[in-house]
Amino acid sequence: MKILEDIFEDTIVRQNLLSKKDKLILGVSGGPDSVCMLHQFSRIQKEYKLYFVCAHFNHGLRKDADKEENFIKSMCDKLKIKCISERKEVGKFFKGDSLEQTARNLRFDFFLKVSRQTKIKRLALAHHKDDLVETVLMRLIRGSGLKGLRGFLPKSKFRSLTVIRPMFELTKEEILSWLKNKNLSYCLDASNFEDKFFRNRIRLELIPFLKKLNPNIIDTLFAGAKNISLDYDFIHNLSQDAFFALKRKDGGSSLSLELAGLKKLPQALFNNVIRIAIEDFKGSTRRLEARHIEELKDLVFHRPSGSIVDLPQILVKKEENSLIIKYLAKN
Amino acid sequence: MKILEDIFEDTIVRQNLLSKKDKLILGVSGGPDSVCMLHQFSRIQKEYKLYFVCAHFNHGLRKDADKEENFIKSMCDKLKIKCISERKEVGKFFKGDSLEQTARNLRFDFFLKVSRQTKIKRLALAHHKDDLVETVLMRLIRGSGLKGLRGFLPKSKFRSLTVIRPMFELTKEEILSWLKNKNLSYCLDASNFEDKFFRNRIRLELIPFLKKLNPNIIDTLFAGAKNISLDYDFIHNLSQDAFFALKRKDGGSSLSLELAGLKKLPQALFNNVIRIAIEDFKGSTRRLEARHIEELKDLVFHRPSGSIVDLPQILVKKEENSLIIKYLAKN
Repeated sequence: MKILEDIFEDTIVRQNLLSKKDKLILGVSGGPDSVCMLHQFSRIQKEYKLYFVCAHFNHGLRKDADKEENFIKSMCDKLKIKCISERKEVGKFFKGDSLEQTARNLRFDFFLKVSRQTKIKRLALAHHKDDLVETVLMRLIRGSGLKGLRGFLPKSKFRSLTVIRPMFELTKEEILSWLKNKNLSYCLDASNFEDKFFRNRIRLELIPFLKKLNPNIIDTLFAGAKNISLDYDFIHNLSQDAFFALKRKDGGSSLSLELAGLKKLPQALFNNVIRIAIEDFKGSTRRLEARHIEELKDLVFHRPSGSIVDLPQILVKKEENSLIIKYLAKN
Repeated sequence: MKILEDIFEDTIVRQNLLSKKDKLILGVSGGPDSVCMLHQFSRIQKEYKLYFVCAHFNHGLRKDADKEENFIKSMCDKLKIKCISERKEVGKFFKGDSLEQTARNLRFDFFLKVSRQTKIKRLALAHHKDDLVETVLMRLIRGSGLKGLRGFLPKSKFRSLTVIRPMFELTKEEILSWLKNKNLSYCLDASNFEDKFFRNRIRLELIPFLKKLNPNIIDTLFAGAKNISLDYDFIHNLSQDAFFALKRKDGGSSLSLELAGLKKLPQALFNNVIRIAIEDFKGSTRRLEARHIEELKDLVFHRPSGSIVDLPQILVKKEENSLIIKYLAKN
């Protein structure tokens, strides 16, 4: 049996999450996962010659929010770690979108602000194996392709930040028992508000049921997601190559793809190339749904030249030799 | 809303399951799915100029088995369809393997025998959308790569048979309500014995729970499996090309792969190429587990020349420039 400390360091080394002398922002909610992460970084700090600050975003949503902030500040004092925190009442910024999404956006805005202040570009978050499996199951139930079924990655980009997840290969159980052994306290249910209700049904009802069918369900689904991640990366890289080969240099106001080449793509690449093109043009694929992609497929293969498909913010037009993406004219 | 008859015919046309004047064996258990399928084929028989026989395998396992056989015979009489049946007590052939696997093997042996007798090579089975989703969930829970997560295919090969599944895009609910409307009877629970216990927990407990989280769960997972199928086919085809490029002509007693090329494969193709090589050499990948593939990966990338890995029935040896697959010497 490997101990938690070894798994944490193995993940850092094998996934190449940081180098010696790196500077880091640690996102700390005060819950068991991030408290454990903070102690792990504190433990390896000298050996790796790391510099890090703790960043805590106080959502102001729960009555214990201020108590949690104070708990983290005093923990950081003891460990001699600089702590930067901000309190923002998420409820005040919430307009129509989901509360979870609002909280997530504000938290990441805060991390970006800390990054500008400190000039540190690497953010460590305490997501663990159970989180990953829950995420995969949530996406499976709501519908997702390979991209979503990977869960989250040990290393990813968010704008200017490199986000690392060194707790990625640890289970909740391993984290809780480590904290108990070390007699360390943490805040209960320091929720990050992401899809709380849905995630709780997965965590408290679905996973316990699946454990009855396969006691190793967490490891089984974790291994599955890792394999899917390899498959996705492979297809995504080929799709990106195909996109650059089909993209024509237009002005900045539109993007054009060579139609004949698009039609010759293997089916598995077509959807990805369309997504990559839209992301390249407008910076994101938010609000782009599977049915939109199906409509574009129909446009490319079955509709006559001159046909147009309207999508959120953009229009896509089929011409004689190309597929053109433009912004919708504002009314 | 499309009616059942249209969905059945659309599947046949779009998936290219048969041509006019084709000859078919219909696998009929007597349960609602196969009774519905039999009536669909009977309905389109003239238009498509089809010839078919009904094939019923009586497992002799349940007390109603003979009643079911008689029910099917009299249904076929009414519809003027030739019925071939065989009774074999599965329990007598069961040795240590699972009862489900024994029943499946005997049933397919029977279909192959009917195929030899009638010279018909196309077998239609009544698997439907709910079956597919159950299969996908079972494989997800037990652990599976893209190959398994596709579920079954609308068209596949089994030895000399082309197996088609024209009910593939119909739900159980659609089938039952069609039968009710037509006032047609069928046998209850004409089980095919495949993983009965595990499948029932998926069907009666897991899927109803998932429906509470997403009322369209069947369609969501069905669409997911279809997309995964495209991704799998793409990766599998490239893996096959890579296998043929790396395979060296040996004698029949061993198969050798070029080692340098194997090391250069993208990770997503490596596992597939190894599976394809073993299947090419010994005719199947039965009993080959994920941990075996991991061991072969370790052999290729980390162990010295001359190292050997023993697998079920075969050994794999790393040499200076190649990886050799041979049968284990018999003791």
